[in-house]
Amino acid sequence: MKDILGGICAPVGFKASGVHCGIRKNKSKRDLALIVSDVKGSAAAVYTTNKVKGAPIAVTRKNIEDGFAQAVICNSGNANTCNEDGEVKAQMMCALTEKFAGVRAEDVIVASTGVIGQVLPIEPIENGMTQLVDALSSDGSSDAAEAIMTTDTVKKEYACEFTLGGKTCRLGAIAKGSGMIHPNMATLLCFLTTDAAISSEVLHTALYDVIQDTLNMVSIDGDTSTNDMVTVIANGKAGNAFIDKAEGGDYKQFYAALEYIMTKVSRAIAKDGEGATRLMECKVSGAKDKATAKIIAKSVICSSLLKAAIFAADANWGRILCAIGYADAQFDINKIDVNLASSKGIVAVCRNGNGVEFSEDEAKKILSEDEICIEVYCNEGNADAVAWGCDLTYDYVRINADYRT
Amino acid sequence: MKDILGGICAPVGFKASGVHCGIRKNKSKRDLALIVSDVKGSAAAVYTTNKVKGAPIAVTRKNIEDGFAQAVICNSGNANTCNEDGEVKAQMMCALTEKFAGVRAEDVIVASTGVIGQVLPIEPIENGMTQLVDALSSDGSSDAAEAIMTTDTVKKEYACEFTLGGKTCRLGAIAKGSGMIHPNMATLLCFLTTDAAISSEVLHTALYDVIQDTLNMVSIDGDTSTNDMVTVIANGKAGNAFIDKAEGGDYKQFYAALEYIMTKVSRAIAKDGEGATRLMECKVSGAKDKATAKIIAKSVICSSLLKAAIFAADANWGRILCAIGYADAQFDINKIDVNLASSKGIVAVCRNGNGVEFSEDEAKKILSEDEICIEVYCNEGNADAVAWGCDLTYDYVRINADYRT
Repeated sequence: MKDILGGICAPVGFKASGVHCGIRKNKSKRDLALIVSDVKGSAAAVYTTNKVKGAPIAVTRKNIEDGFAQAVICNSGNANTCNEDGEVKAQMMCALTEKFAGVRAEDVIVASTGVIGQVLPIEPIENGMTQLVDALSSDGSSDAAEAIMTTDTVKKEYACEFTLGGKTCRLGAIAKGSGMIHPNMATLLCFLTTDAAISSEVLHTALYDVIQDTLNMVSIDGDTSTNDMVTVIANGKAGNAFIDKAEGGDYKQFYAALEYIMTKVSRAIAKDGEGATRLMECKVSGAKDKATAKIIAKSVICSSLLKAAIFAADANWGRILCAIGYADAQFDINKIDVNLASSKGIVAVCRNGNGVEFSEDEAKKILSEDEICIEVYCNEGNADAVAWGCDLTYDYVRINADYRT
Repeated sequence: MKDILGGICAPVGFKASGVHCGIRKNKSKRDLALIVSDVKGSAAAVYTTNKVKGAPIAVTRKNIEDGFAQAVICNSGNANTCNEDGEVKAQMMCALTEKFAGVRAEDVIVASTGVIGQVLPIEPIENGMTQLVDALSSDGSSDAAEAIMTTDTVKKEYACEFTLGGKTCRLGAIAKGSGMIHPNMATLLCFLTTDAAISSEVLHTALYDVIQDTLNMVSIDGDTSTNDMVTVIANGKAGNAFIDKAEGGDYKQFYAALEYIMTKVSRAIAKDGEGATRLMECKVSGAKDKATAKIIAKSVICSSLLKAAIFAADANWGRILCAIGYADAQFDINKIDVNLASSKGIVAVCRNGNGVEFSEDEAKKILSEDEICIEVYCNEGNADAVAWGCDLTYDYVRINADYRT
């Protein structure tokens, strides 16, 4: 897998743009993004499991029911959720895309992110469409990535190159995360593009499966958002042999590329969690099965107490044991070993469920890095899992006490 | 139900004390508590469901297996959990209680609370026993309540009086809460005393059932502690007709008293959550069944995003809908109504799952009180439930980033 530049415009035949249209008051913050493929492509999406679903999700779901899409339009600053006229407004966004960009409204993926329960003003979007479409370019990925950001502090934009039957293919992604992040079968906003030729059914299978081990293993605050949506459009421009089965070498290679990019997205979202100062990774090994490993890893990265200790780079490993202990799975707590690790080294803090002596200074040095890892060994089998979270800081409280003001 | 003074010493035949023995460095903080009944009584207890269980839980469980207990000894400052010699140390505490207070070691309930994974020093306890036993008095409830506090800012001490078959009975409680609070079938530390005559089996049934609607409906931070323990000793000194069935008027009256006191304890623990500035109550009504009502209420009070908004007295009701939406139960989100209420008034913010216009100023005034209520109406049936939590503040982060230092 080779990292390349260009984000969602790295795959052949995709253009993107991002502008400030006025949904946000801050004129220096882009708030409207557009992604357009030269041709219609296979499409797949996975959505939030929250019962409260943003209106754009209903419209997108209908639009890609036939397995195809050609464009994505997304605003930030307003979630268009819990509004009586939500679906009407989401449809208007698709109609505007048809009118200004020439893509059929039924082939548009529409998304919104921001405050819940405030009526979405359509005028700024309508007024911004000319500028948005004029700005479409194969260099536009960064602007689009910027336009979908809310409290994110860094742009999330990735692309990689891989080969299918001798043909070079590309896969790109932009994403936003930061708060209300506890994906459950779907997550946040992430838009993927690829020039690989692949059927929408197979694309959906790959997307759904990859998400189980990537985005669904991230938690910032335990709150599953109403507007989570991950979509992918595959326009086939790479000219590879059409993938129409979720098996075989080409599928595996495509799956590996998708997993590679989604792992990057997941780590970036965790590291840029609201208020976060460091990425907290939990690697569970030696579990008797995958489900157990995942439940333990998720439990550790979700603990508010541990997250606060990690903010202070405090090796309060009892909180790790506590979080492992309330993980809803069957395993022997008396076989658990725990290490703390980072690029500065590794220290054993627990063996067989009991504490062992360690140097607090060394542990502090390890935990002071901006990416730290909690290694948990179950000593009961061969399954493993990784989950990603972040520390809990004063800034998380500040951001979320201030969010609407 | 009549509120009375005296806490755990309000029931006839109970004495208590609390001293500083030296487990904590701060000499002005009591760290060792003792409760003794003149005679052996029926005993019942409910413990944490965390797989990591404090060593004192194993010893207490064994000691009250026969249904009887006469004393409670508890230290703060050290949880005696995840230590190889944990059970030995807990047994030593019981042996010291026998040696100094004359209560058989096998009739002692032992508990510890504080940092996990640090070896419990027995010397300070041994050295403090004479002072602890000398201080035993029927005025000692407050000292004992103080001695079990960790990051709690207020003492939790309650008592009430009720009548069983013409005999006046009393029920008292002390408790500690504050952090690592997300009870699951058991919780934190709470020691109850009563002079009612009741069998240990019936006592256990009442305790277990009451906890489902009281302590198990509290969450401060989603972390289920390793040392949660609620115990009750009933010494029969009130002279009422012995209750040996979990039915009938006397049982119902006893149950009501227990529920009354445990509701007070639950509210107090939520309101004094680590760093909290206000109590956040969620009342769910009109659900199709009790389980659904409880799941929705719990989901609302556990949302970190909502907790941060409540800290800012910000009527960000979209976060309430979001938390209701990811509650793991079956109900129609489009029938949900939500009000915000406090002693300053009540304001409707959501009807049929959609936002309604309201005065932000009025909502701010309501949410600025130190006890606020989120009222959720499901409009699907007659079941209701209440859950208690608190806001998420800078101080929660400060306290938990500093806890071991």
